[in-house]
Amino acid sequence: MVRVHNLAVSLDGFATGEGQSLEAPFGHAGGRLMEWFFPTKTFVGMSGHESEAVGSGTRGVDDAFASATSERIGVEIMGRRKFGPQTGPWEDESWRGWWGEEPPFHTPVVVLTHHERPDLVVGETTFLFRDLPPAEALSLATGLAGGLDVRLGGGPTVVREFLAADLVDHLHVVVVPILLGRGVRLWDGLEGLEERFTTEVTASPSGVVHYVFTRKPSAPRGPRAPR
Amino acid sequence: MVRVHNLAVSLDGFATGEGQSLEAPFGHAGGRLMEWFFPTKTFVGMSGHESEAVGSGTRGVDDAFASATSERIGVEIMGRRKFGPQTGPWEDESWRGWWGEEPPFHTPVVVLTHHERPDLVVGETTFLFRDLPPAEALSLATGLAGGLDVRLGGGPTVVREFLAADLVDHLHVVVVPILLGRGVRLWDGLEGLEERFTTEVTASPSGVVHYVFTRKPSAPRGPRAPR
Repeated sequence: MVRVHNLAVSLDGFATGEGQSLEAPFGHAGGRLMEWFFPTKTFVGMSGHESEAVGSGTRGVDDAFASATSERIGVEIMGRRKFGPQTGPWEDESWRGWWGEEPPFHTPVVVLTHHERPDLVVGETTFLFRDLPPAEALSLATGLAGGLDVRLGGGPTVVREFLAADLVDHLHVVVVPILLGRGVRLWDGLEGLEERFTTEVTASPSGVVHYVFTRKPSAPRGPRAPR
Repeated sequence: MVRVHNLAVSLDGFATGEGQSLEAPFGHAGGRLMEWFFPTKTFVGMSGHESEAVGSGTRGVDDAFASATSERIGVEIMGRRKFGPQTGPWEDESWRGWWGEEPPFHTPVVVLTHHERPDLVVGETTFLFRDLPPAEALSLATGLAGGLDVRLGGGPTVVREFLAADLVDHLHVVVVPILLGRGVRLWDGLEGLEERFTTEVTASPSGVVHYVFTRKPSAPRGPRAPR
């Protein structure tokens, strides 16, 4: 199974704001797309994070969805922009990700980039930098997953490419009731996606809406012809 | 009060598909944006409509929202493309709208168009064709409303213009879990809209999500500076 979890988009469909940088990983969106997530028990419990939440975090519907993120996951695939704010050739290899010396993955992580560099071990996580199209990246990841599932960790461009190639089995998207106006759109080029999935919709008291798309076993496999 | 009701958009933000025509008022979207509405008691009860719904229609959450559409409404403002599929100068004036000889409005309707034509009375509805910017259209409509509210009936381009001019008090949007991929977007150019409104979110068993935006009395009036 290839799974996407906790992918937050604004009501106008942007999964990242404009102007990503070291100081602003989500660009002008700031933390607004993830405010539903920060109070949850799942987030509070992550190593190295602190939160203003009371006790050990909320356990309502937002946490119910968030907590599924790491269940039976053996590997992650992410885009380079999730790993860091740099673009183009690596000027040096001192950047070790956003997550400090114990990243929350604890599995191999395949970082898709046109600019490869040597594997990097940080705590219990090994990052592999590879220039591969989606299907080949998935083959590599599946081999590393030890029989568990593959999490597709984003960002939105990578998720969109895997969706277009029909390689995603489970897609959890969180719609946040704000209008970002600009940034990276998740849904472009995916007309008719819903036909291949069953859709479940759950509104949370926090104001976000959780969409879970589960691939229909009967849907024909393979990339779909552009319309 | 200026109110928008039952404005349906796809999950990727399109309120109308591509290719509007006499045969396809919503373009390639067909009826898919309004399937949540057709079974409701409100729709079934509209004059001239028939439905496959059992009895007199559903009375659940979708109908609860739909039924507010006509409460205390004294006038409607609509875009020309809601009135008909024609563009440019009127070739003749034989088109009397989509709705037959008893349109469901029963009030004056201001049709915004660059191509004016004489007022048109159909049943209990009078259509006035005017080339006016949003604030002036609203002045005209308010004068016709007899102390009741103004409904802004769409399409999405007109609603977007009134939102940009900060002339909307109540906005009910229905997000339908499909990806249309192309058409007319509702949300473009409205970054930060949520700051002026309180937002209420309700998921329906039908799969759609009802968003109600109510203008905060404390929000400063007037068009907002572009960002």
